[in-house]
Amino acid sequence: MSHPRIFFLSDFGHTDAYVGVVKAVIARIASDARVIDLAHEVPPQDLRAGSLALYATMPYLPAGSIVLGVIDPGVGSDRRPVVIEAEGFTFVGPDNGLFGAALALDRPKRAFVLENRALRLTHSSRTFDGRDVFGPAAAHIATGIPLEDFGRQLPLGELVAPPALPTDQAAGEIWTFDRFGNAITTLRAPAETTGDVALEGRSVPLRTHFSAVAEGVPVALVGSAGLIEIAVRNGSARSVLGLHSGARVTRRARGML
Amino acid sequence: MSHPRIFFLSDFGHTDAYVGVVKAVIARIASDARVIDLAHEVPPQDLRAGSLALYATMPYLPAGSIVLGVIDPGVGSDRRPVVIEAEGFTFVGPDNGLFGAALALDRPKRAFVLENRALRLTHSSRTFDGRDVFGPAAAHIATGIPLEDFGRQLPLGELVAPPALPTDQAAGEIWTFDRFGNAITTLRAPAETTGDVALEGRSVPLRTHFSAVAEGVPVALVGSAGLIEIAVRNGSARSVLGLHSGARVTRRARGML
Amino acid sequence: MSHPRIFFLSDFGHTDAYVGVVKAVIARIASDARVIDLAHEVPPQDLRAGSLALYATMPYLPAGSIVLGVIDPGVGSDRRPVVIEAEGFTFVGPDNGLFGAALALDRPKRAFVLENRALRLTHSSRTFDGRDVFGPAAAHIATGIPLEDFGRQLPLGELVAPPALPTDQAAGEIWTFDRFGNAITTLRAPAETTGDVALEGRSVPLRTHFSAVAEGVPVALVGSAGLIEIAVRNGSARSVLGLHSGARVTRRARGML
Repeated sequence: MSHPRIFFLSDFGHTDAYVGVVKAVIARIASDARVIDLAHEVPPQDLRAGSLALYATMPYLPAGSIVLGVIDPGVGSDRRPVVIEAEGFTFVGPDNGLFGAALALDRPKRAFVLENRALRLTHSSRTFDGRDVFGPAAAHIATGIPLEDFGRQLPLGELVAPPALPTDQAAGEIWTFDRFGNAITTLRAPAETTGDVALEGRSVPLRTHFSAVAEGVPVALVGSAGLIEIAVRNGSARSVLGLHSGARVTRRARGML
Repeated sequence: MSHPRIFFLSDFGHTDAYVGVVKAVIARIASDARVIDLAHEVPPQDLRAGSLALYATMPYLPAGSIVLGVIDPGVGSDRRPVVIEAEGFTFVGPDNGLFGAALALDRPKRAFVLENRALRLTHSSRTFDGRDVFGPAAAHIATGIPLEDFGRQLPLGELVAPPALPTDQAAGEIWTFDRFGNAITTLRAPAETTGDVALEGRSVPLRTHFSAVAEGVPVALVGSAGLIEIAVRNGSARSVLGLHSGARVTRRARGML
Repeated sequence: MSHPRIFFLSDFGHTDAYVGVVKAVIARIASDARVIDLAHEVPPQDLRAGSLALYATMPYLPAGSIVLGVIDPGVGSDRRPVVIEAEGFTFVGPDNGLFGAALALDRPKRAFVLENRALRLTHSSRTFDGRDVFGPAAAHIATGIPLEDFGRQLPLGELVAPPALPTDQAAGEIWTFDRFGNAITTLRAPAETTGDVALEGRSVPLRTHFSAVAEGVPVALVGSAGLIEIAVRNGSARSVLGLHSGARVTRRARGML
């Protein structure tokens, strides 16, 4: 690889220099690597939002990219730091389900625990594994260090389950919300965008356009990630409809309700 | 061009990975291109704020840069996606007036509609033209694809008019507000920063420094984009004075009021 | 240097294109330089927060980096624009104490006032020295312009004192707060994380983990920058305890209180 690319997602925000410090660490280890930000204002510790952001990004990444994802409510605990090699990409971050939805699109092959202290920063803290463990690992991978050098292999079945997974079935759940309060479900778009979506005792029509409904009326649409979303025209579906993550949603053909 | 540069402005925010996905798409098509962020927290769908940000940037861009601007309230409607070739730069985005003020500084030469599906992503959505249409177009331009390959030529006179334009006249309007509530007007700075600015039935003195007025008192100043701004020392002119975008403002020589 | 690196910290935010304009200016002067963002959402004009962000970053920067820091409440006044050459890095920004804590880790050698107008932008404003003075200086330094070309040398003792400095003593102060309301003190971590921290008439136990205390109870911890922080588990220490920057804090061995 001439210029390996590291795509970086976190909940670090831009108020403190956490993102910048991780990039500095990467630059010291892999001076040729290019770090490309995916997003850093993911709501703090929100694995659902982070896993959806990675899922939505997968189909568009250049082959061979490294995906560095640090949303890590368990930092300082005994959750495992891992690297996961998949068909298309290499994932680096905490083993907490963050990468599970992305791995539904990119078949995982091998996983290793990041336990080799020689490939971490020497002076590390208990609270900033992005800087001390994950950033260095992504950088070392970019320089060509083999994955087996990082630590013992982890059977794929032992990876922590993701908080939500996309589905082609008719039944799913609310995955998360975007910043406008639209509810993104785990339901993959059907071939025909007709029928309804049932949730919380109500039925929402599935349409191709916002303009199909009046202002303030809920509507189901297919969003840019190919998933069904529940929206309220010029409003927040989350607050108007009182929705919450994990709520069950069901897609039904027209007239079935 | 060895490393073509794409300057990227949007209202995508950093909560979701929209900005990152567009960069991933560009990296796949034009691996040598450098994407430089202008701003991505422009208020959602705010064409006035976006057009001012581009106007303020124009004099400082390296010659030959590509400007990718995606503030796109009309996505999914029949508004045209366009590329505009100007003397210094090439603009890619929706035809909704976003680039109009920038084009007052960089004379447009030709425009084309982005209708060639071979230069878009194959699997596209109706709601994310930044990823599916504009990002790919900017990347293809960076690789040297001629503009006429993108679609039919659009007479420059048919481009949608901008929401506001800078002026050397004495009469203008409030273009938009910055995050501190200062009102940026369309009035270009006069040679001498004396006199007053009339707006909403009041007269505000034009001064060279904030310190010329007491705290809480409105003052007109020349901002960094060379435009007259209305500010309130240690306060928000927008809320203190109850101002709104588009309100008429008039510059007057000293003593004329 | 093949690709000189400029690490860039500011309080410009991402609503306006200020950050992007500075990068455009740098690209025009030093086309090979790589600009890496440290953070741009530092609270406006907050020198305490900015100086801590730079201090926390210092140990991780690649040798030879240029640090461009623009938190500049005094822009437009007679505060001096400076370049400071230290053992490891070169600092560019306002002489207002912003770099003082970083220079506690990286010994300063020489400082110069940025007064050579040939190395500024020709058409400059009074309000945007990031674009007109500091960005161009960082870029010119990246191209190899000797520091003495920028202006008269400034004795190091004349640099403005920093707002806070880290200390190995037992007595210090609250440096600033992070976005979660944790109070970061100037107290460097002792070898043993036992004992207590006294502040505002109360005693807070120093522990290695959040989990050592119940929810809502204040605890002192060693943060990722190696400084003692005051936190409230699942809460904001700032608001729960009513803390403010500059408040005196004292570290005490166990049982001394």
